[in-house]
Amino acid sequence: MNGVRSIIYTSGSGIYGDQDAEPISEDFGPLLPISLYGASKLASEGLISAFCNLFDMKAYIFRLANVVGARQTHGVIYDFIRKLKENPTSLEILGNGTQSKSYIHVQDVIEAVLFVTDHCSDVINLYNVATDDYVDVTTIAKLVVSQMGCSNVEFRYTGGKRGWKGDVPTVRFDLGKIHQLGWKARYSSVQAIQKSIQEVLET
Amino acid sequence: MNGVRSIIYTSGSGIYGDQDAEPISEDFGPLLPISLYGASKLASEGLISAFCNLFDMKAYIFRLANVVGARQTHGVIYDFIRKLKENPTSLEILGNGTQSKSYIHVQDVIEAVLFVTDHCSDVINLYNVATDDYVDVTTIAKLVVSQMGCSNVEFRYTGGKRGWKGDVPTVRFDLGKIHQLGWKARYSSVQAIQKSIQEVLET
Repeated sequence: MNGVRSIIYTSGSGIYGDQDAEPISEDFGPLLPISLYGASKLASEGLISAFCNLFDMKAYIFRLANVVGARQTHGVIYDFIRKLKENPTSLEILGNGTQSKSYIHVQDVIEAVLFVTDHCSDVINLYNVATDDYVDVTTIAKLVVSQMGCSNVEFRYTGGKRGWKGDVPTVRFDLGKIHQLGWKARYSSVQAIQKSIQEVLET
Repeated sequence: MNGVRSIIYTSGSGIYGDQDAEPISEDFGPLLPISLYGASKLASEGLISAFCNLFDMKAYIFRLANVVGARQTHGVIYDFIRKLKENPTSLEILGNGTQSKSYIHVQDVIEAVLFVTDHCSDVINLYNVATDDYVDVTTIAKLVVSQMGCSNVEFRYTGGKRGWKGDVPTVRFDLGKIHQLGWKARYSSVQAIQKSIQEVLET
């Protein structure tokens, strides 16, 4: 094992599958992901759990909300900015725009990881990491339009409640475990999105 | 996808990790396996779940107890018979002999699979399949000794509560879901073990 004693793994809400508006805590089951992304995260969690038990390692597993911030290379914010730079009068939106999720700034993710690794030392340390609030896709589109200074942008929805096959339209986290440990996100979802739009526009 | 519309997957209790004497239902979480076997079963469940949702397939996932019966090629019964054929006066037993699990006969597994596939048609159909009773390893050793007609066999325990690293010493299933559907194992664990000893001895 090359002397590795602990591992930090960034998992995601995708492992929970589609649970609608139900707030999901870390002990939720059954875990039935609907995307290959979620399946690969779940497979990784399982392998890490087995490795830690077999080979005396420790794991910090973080089930993250949508992470946003400087240097993103994909995702809804990046996508809207790219599209509006090409055509500032019309914006294609995947799905019906009502998909509603938590967006967390990468700075908050780093702070959560440092906080949990400082405060926990179980064999498996498993935490949801998200904000308390949720933002829908149409609201994100409006924020991007506003911060880019566009006006009279026509929103063209591709339709359907999912943005793509395997998209989970509504994600809600139960954050009781990490709040009780003493960590909370500094930026709300709206603040994280606004900050990220600024950061992506500046790069 | 070659036209495959449904898949039957034999998962196992290994995905639940080590939950001691707590009876575990299908919606238990978090799923933190302690063996690579359990991790691979969990990874497979996740991939199957994603595939079914993405590619319009159906899955029947069975989390099985220890399966015994004719034609086994490994496991505690096979192991004890092999050792006693080599040396009928002394038997090495992995662990302290108190590991306690459900043993289900392969005929019951087949009937459970046919019953569930006949009665269910959700996208993911997930069921624990086990017996209602549990047998410890020393009891299995005594049954094998008795059915082989050995006497005065010395039991030599390797010690420790686990038979090997990654072994879950106590496994308890909540069988409410499959019982409610209308299926119960025909053979108890003791009956399944006795029948299997006979079958392995006859091959």
